[in-house]
Amino acid sequence: MSKVKVAINGYGTIGKRVADAVTMQDDMEIIGIAKTRPNYEAFVAHDKGYNVYTLADRVDDMKKAGIPAAGSVEDMAAEADIVVDCTPGGVGEKNKALYEKAGVKAIWQGGEDHELAGCSFNAEANYAEALGRDFVRVVSCNTTGLCRVIYPLDQEYGVKKVRVTLMRRSADPNDIKTGPINAIIPNPIKLPSHHGPDVKSIMPHINITSTAVKLSTTLMHVHTLNMELEKDCTSEDVKDLFAKQSRIRFIEQGISSTAEIMELAKDIGRPRGDMWENSVWKDSVTMYEGELYFFQGIHQESIVIPENVDAIRAMMELEKDGAKSIAKTNKAMGL
Amino acid sequence: MSKVKVAINGYGTIGKRVADAVTMQDDMEIIGIAKTRPNYEAFVAHDKGYNVYTLADRVDDMKKAGIPAAGSVEDMAAEADIVVDCTPGGVGEKNKALYEKAGVKAIWQGGEDHELAGCSFNAEANYAEALGRDFVRVVSCNTTGLCRVIYPLDQEYGVKKVRVTLMRRSADPNDIKTGPINAIIPNPIKLPSHHGPDVKSIMPHINITSTAVKLSTTLMHVHTLNMELEKDCTSEDVKDLFAKQSRIRFIEQGISSTAEIMELAKDIGRPRGDMWENSVWKDSVTMYEGELYFFQGIHQESIVIPENVDAIRAMMELEKDGAKSIAKTNKAMGL
Amino acid sequence: MSKVKVAINGYGTIGKRVADAVTMQDDMEIIGIAKTRPNYEAFVAHDKGYNVYTLADRVDDMKKAGIPAAGSVEDMAAEADIVVDCTPGGVGEKNKALYEKAGVKAIWQGGEDHELAGCSFNAEANYAEALGRDFVRVVSCNTTGLCRVIYPLDQEYGVKKVRVTLMRRSADPNDIKTGPINAIIPNPIKLPSHHGPDVKSIMPHINITSTAVKLSTTLMHVHTLNMELEKDCTSEDVKDLFAKQSRIRFIEQGISSTAEIMELAKDIGRPRGDMWENSVWKDSVTMYEGELYFFQGIHQESIVIPENVDAIRAMMELEKDGAKSIAKTNKAMGL
Amino acid sequence: MSKVKVAINGYGTIGKRVADAVTMQDDMEIIGIAKTRPNYEAFVAHDKGYNVYTLADRVDDMKKAGIPAAGSVEDMAAEADIVVDCTPGGVGEKNKALYEKAGVKAIWQGGEDHELAGCSFNAEANYAEALGRDFVRVVSCNTTGLCRVIYPLDQEYGVKKVRVTLMRRSADPNDIKTGPINAIIPNPIKLPSHHGPDVKSIMPHINITSTAVKLSTTLMHVHTLNMELEKDCTSEDVKDLFAKQSRIRFIEQGISSTAEIMELAKDIGRPRGDMWENSVWKDSVTMYEGELYFFQGIHQESIVIPENVDAIRAMMELEKDGAKSIAKTNKAMGL
Ligand SMILES: NC(=O)c1ccc[n+]([C@@H]2O[C@H](COP(=O)([O-])OP(=O)(O)OC[C@H]3O[C@@H](n4cnc5c(N)ncnc54)[C@H](O)[C@@H]3O)[C@@H](O)[C@H]2O)c1
Ligand SMILES: NC(=O)c1ccc[n+]([C@@H]2O[C@H](COP(=O)([O-])OP(=O)(O)OC[C@H]3O[C@@H](n4cnc5c(N)ncnc54)[C@H](O)[C@@H]3O)[C@@H](O)[C@H]2O)c1
Ligand SMILES: NC(=O)c1ccc[n+]([C@@H]2O[C@H](COP(=O)([O-])OP(=O)(O)OC[C@H]3O[C@@H](n4cnc5c(N)ncnc54)[C@H](O)[C@@H]3O)[C@@H](O)[C@H]2O)c1
Ligand SMILES: NC(=O)c1ccc[n+]([C@@H]2O[C@H](COP(=O)([O-])OP(=O)(O)OC[C@H]3O[C@@H](n4cnc5c(N)ncnc54)[C@H](O)[C@@H]3O)[C@@H](O)[C@H]2O)c1
Repeated sequence: MSKVKVAINGYGTIGKRVADAVTMQDDMEIIGIAKTRPNYEAFVAHDKGYNVYTLADRVDDMKKAGIPAAGSVEDMAAEADIVVDCTPGGVGEKNKALYEKAGVKAIWQGGEDHELAGCSFNAEANYAEALGRDFVRVVSCNTTGLCRVIYPLDQEYGVKKVRVTLMRRSADPNDIKTGPINAIIPNPIKLPSHHGPDVKSIMPHINITSTAVKLSTTLMHVHTLNMELEKDCTSEDVKDLFAKQSRIRFIEQGISSTAEIMELAKDIGRPRGDMWENSVWKDSVTMYEGELYFFQGIHQESIVIPENVDAIRAMMELEKDGAKSIAKTNKAMGL
Repeated sequence: MSKVKVAINGYGTIGKRVADAVTMQDDMEIIGIAKTRPNYEAFVAHDKGYNVYTLADRVDDMKKAGIPAAGSVEDMAAEADIVVDCTPGGVGEKNKALYEKAGVKAIWQGGEDHELAGCSFNAEANYAEALGRDFVRVVSCNTTGLCRVIYPLDQEYGVKKVRVTLMRRSADPNDIKTGPINAIIPNPIKLPSHHGPDVKSIMPHINITSTAVKLSTTLMHVHTLNMELEKDCTSEDVKDLFAKQSRIRFIEQGISSTAEIMELAKDIGRPRGDMWENSVWKDSVTMYEGELYFFQGIHQESIVIPENVDAIRAMMELEKDGAKSIAKTNKAMGL
Repeated sequence: MSKVKVAINGYGTIGKRVADAVTMQDDMEIIGIAKTRPNYEAFVAHDKGYNVYTLADRVDDMKKAGIPAAGSVEDMAAEADIVVDCTPGGVGEKNKALYEKAGVKAIWQGGEDHELAGCSFNAEANYAEALGRDFVRVVSCNTTGLCRVIYPLDQEYGVKKVRVTLMRRSADPNDIKTGPINAIIPNPIKLPSHHGPDVKSIMPHINITSTAVKLSTTLMHVHTLNMELEKDCTSEDVKDLFAKQSRIRFIEQGISSTAEIMELAKDIGRPRGDMWENSVWKDSVTMYEGELYFFQGIHQESIVIPENVDAIRAMMELEKDGAKSIAKTNKAMGL
Repeated sequence: MSKVKVAINGYGTIGKRVADAVTMQDDMEIIGIAKTRPNYEAFVAHDKGYNVYTLADRVDDMKKAGIPAAGSVEDMAAEADIVVDCTPGGVGEKNKALYEKAGVKAIWQGGEDHELAGCSFNAEANYAEALGRDFVRVVSCNTTGLCRVIYPLDQEYGVKKVRVTLMRRSADPNDIKTGPINAIIPNPIKLPSHHGPDVKSIMPHINITSTAVKLSTTLMHVHTLNMELEKDCTSEDVKDLFAKQSRIRFIEQGISSTAEIMELAKDIGRPRGDMWENSVWKDSVTMYEGELYFFQGIHQESIVIPENVDAIRAMMELEKDGAKSIAKTNKAMGL
């Protein structure tokens, strides 16, 4: 069987990781990536053997800079079965017409609105919904992290109410322009924030409120969760449930911060030091006065990567069963 | 009437501010401060005209370093009516015997346990309890900040449950040794944290749970509060109630971070750029699905300062009525 | 004698400090400040009693926001003898026509080019040059800091060559947008940087090269200086010379960082915690293999403030003698 | 031929990297690593298949924590041909007697003094000196970075004088205890610093002075170099010379900070995101007024790793020719 042809539009933090994860699968391949500027990331993509495309009016610039551009984004779309759009939030929307014209399927990321694709995706929670669809949106890192813990709890015990405080990294590690250097920024100030409710784009019946702040850190987000469940259960029950989830990892053995989680990811040989799983501090999982509390770290750069692979598989109907796709993706990535 | 003689044991972040605040009052005065090392803070204290005391075995070192030490901590205690102990958390406990021997009243800070003094203090919530007492503990910056919003809400509407996430600055601005430089540290990892429950040392009937993290910032703590109240009320009601509290300040006019609150404190001419009030973001005060939400910033270095002045006044019975002491302290400090 | 009427165009980090410093003088006064947006700084300016002006097309917006705008920048210029332009770097240039049309003198800051004013200013080094001039540029914080140490050394011993590494704070404390959060940014990468040579706009004969980096800190710049002098001298000679400079302060008594210098400024009661002097670490002043080495900290927010006051005095010919103006400014500010 | 048996004493930042690099070679192997505490790093070492040793009195603790400890550090030394001591600076010294008693060769790191081993090592500069020796010290990350650029320049053009400003990361990425969060720390304050002169432990005739500061960053050190050379040459000559060095990498293609160098290391697939080479900003290499200037980044965590491999090879006389060892190490590591 020939492999599904995948193109990456926007080869930044998310795009380069999706490209590498797709390359690890046996049922799909990268036929090209698109990059707007000939910076080091473009050179590395070229050195890795990816065909580098760019905006139609920049093909010559790319060549002049030393990268033999394979053509325009339109050319790339014409070659592909599916485009994974990883352009910056808000930019992806403008590419919809291009994808429709090329008759190519497309995946957007969490920086775009649910309405753009009409279907928001999390592998565990609603794989089936994406089967055969032309357009899908893989939800943001924060929403993905929330779905992965809320969905199984809801299935098992029923989720009555979720209250979450999202402590967000303000900039990705390679982003040197964005601050703050020394401050806490409640954002948005008007409460509740939109972050938590984005979970409803996948599980509409979940009652969730969220507050969010931006912090002077680049490594990971941290979520403080408080949940009321329908059925009685103990903290041990919740730990047992989480232990069964392939994309939740318990954090223990003296790891007390996001910095040490990132060190662990390097120690266990993860490419780019990525931590694809939710990082739940095991000792924090507590049932107190009938409510569940826990902390989790979310590696914003990588958590949505396996979900993108699964979304491709669902949309291309390479696999009908979500659980099987998840297992296949995990195995290929070494998760 | 002669002024109450106040001594400061431990002239650091809190101690130097209490000294200056006491000096601003007309019914009390500083008779000396104690410092362990002859660093720049000791020189400034001397230059300001404070008598500088030190540990008994360091009097000579202090003199050698160029500061004419007035004597030992014991000597200082003998001169005072009351000692405000601002030594580092855990150290203050060891000084109790010294104060008892000297027959002098003493105030400890939030770094010590409730049991040490037997009476924890917040001016608004339990001034009367401290009247005439020998030993009092002014609660920590976080607990003070929580009491100032919980107490009036409890009086007016009844507080059924408080859930708070405490996002703590990891180090004070002049502390260059403590990190993290780039990480989020859930601390404690076991939930719920002890921070919220310390409110019960003042209002034992409050049902409160808390989670806490330490952040790479030096300026302020930020609290995310979620509260269930007994009586119905609107966000406007809560804002009206907060507007009446002299030690709560609304943050608005485009201020979106702790950094800008600190800038505001400098702009309005506060000594050391201190913000003595709880900084409640006005737009964040929201009643959502029957629960109250809001953000507040807490300037850890200065929020307990007016409370220390009030505690002195209560313990020395300079004023029987808490509201009058608060008004007097505020006026003298320009709050 | 009536006071010189000073207007501040651009009431940000520098503008608000110049306004307050002018207010402290007995021979000049603030007749208005201009602010583009009605944020908290505008409210504080109004509360302090300054007349708040704004861009001609924003007068109504300002009023709507609750600040009774006194008129446009043009109106303000018409009232003033001299405008101190403290708009962001590059913006000030566009205001020149306005000032010329209004027939008002103007001072720009270091963010503008030397050519705009034709005269760059440092009180110690070239006060006389600014006497009676219409347009003057007070050089940047880094250049001011360099002039203050190079000028007296050059007068006394002759400066053969200066090599300086400028370690710059990337953002001012209230700027939460600018990074980096965790990185070192050599900037400019092409060497030598333009920073050092700006000293030549005041002392054209100085041979100086510089390299500069931007750091994840908001408090102060730090300069590492290496200098070759014409005449022999010892580190003690240099210390003696520096000790005589009113705008150089020795850092000692255990202060090991910029954070503690900022703490010292607060401790000694400086408004906004400003440190107007060069902060030279006394123990770092070393003569090694015939070359002078030392570290100095530069409080970017405040170091140029006394220089602006002196520049006004020179341009308005309130005082012919630079040394006398410096002494007068210092005394009024408490420096 | 049987492989040389290498043991790692102290499995932290450096130790774990040396272990992995040794494993990549075909003429040496890891027979065990020693770790004091059973934290996540110990678990990962065990999972990777390394024999985990510990302090004699902690063998049981290790087992109790779930790690089947292979024995004591003494047991490990008895099994090894050579121990690479990667304990924290100052601790390694105490292990000398143990190594002598076990009759095992040992390498220490830059945190120990030159005198301890009597031979300081940099592969390019003095490989031959270490041939057959029992004790060698691989110099620190900063000194290694300096040797790699000074040595070839000295060989080719003669180095008359080096002036360097070392801008140091204050903490490694997984160290959450160490600050500063927001400050610049000149360290040492007394000039010149000891850092530069450590180069003389390898090249005694080099005239070098250094100044150093500690910064709020975890990623890399940055050096600003100023050099006077004996023979005339251009910046192009220097670039050509650097281009020939296998452990110097030019930084270009729009990379403007240490954060982007770290991103590049991840992008090119380096284990743990390590950058083993000096990162010299190509555009910064400048000959100005007869002096050479440039910036280089030094990845403190990994730069000494290939040097440790070469040191083992020299001490065990696996290879007499330094250039051949360097080439072999580089190839095995993928450098
Ligand atoms: N970074 C994260 O933490 C994260 C996590 C989850 C989801 N997301 C979402 O993923 C998407 C991509 O984010 P990112 O962080 O990878 O962004 P990024 O800025 O790292 O990368 C975006 C890439 O798109 C390129 N680009 C810009 N404009 C383009 C255009 N018009 N056409 C083609 N390419 C263009 C840029 O050059 C860059 O390479 C956003 O929707 C974002 O919200 C990001
Ligand atoms: N810093 C804050 O944010 C903050 C806020 C609220 C309450 N507190 C509490 O206030 C207390 C003081 O904290 P701080 O931040 O001012 O500490 P600090 O470290 O800034 O100052 C402590 C001072 O005590 C001196 N000292 C140390 N040992 C001493 C001894 N044996 N005898 C006398 N003096 C000694 C030190 O030299 C220093 O001057 C602690 O209980 C702390 O928990 C601190
Ligand atoms: N901040 C420093 O560390 C520092 C130090 C020395 C010199 N400088 C120089 O001082 C000048 C001002 O810098 P700053 O840091 O105070 O800037 P800032 O951004 O803090 O303040 C600039 C002010 O100008 C206002 N403004 C913007 N556009 C305007 C316009 N068109 N007309 C009138 N006002 C306008 C802004 O609202 C703001 O209040 C620049 O030239 C800068 O290079 C700054
Ligand atoms: N981290 C760097 O950037 C860097 C760079 C170059 C050289 N060095 C040098 O390398 C050496 C190691 O530094 P590091 O950063 O890897 O330290 P580290 O703290 O990361 O690791 C040290 C390890 O030694 C263990 N240890 C502590 N005491 C021990 C003992 N008595 N016996 C055995 N093991 C013990 C610790 O548990 C830890 O695993 C030091 O000399 C340091 O100066 C460090």
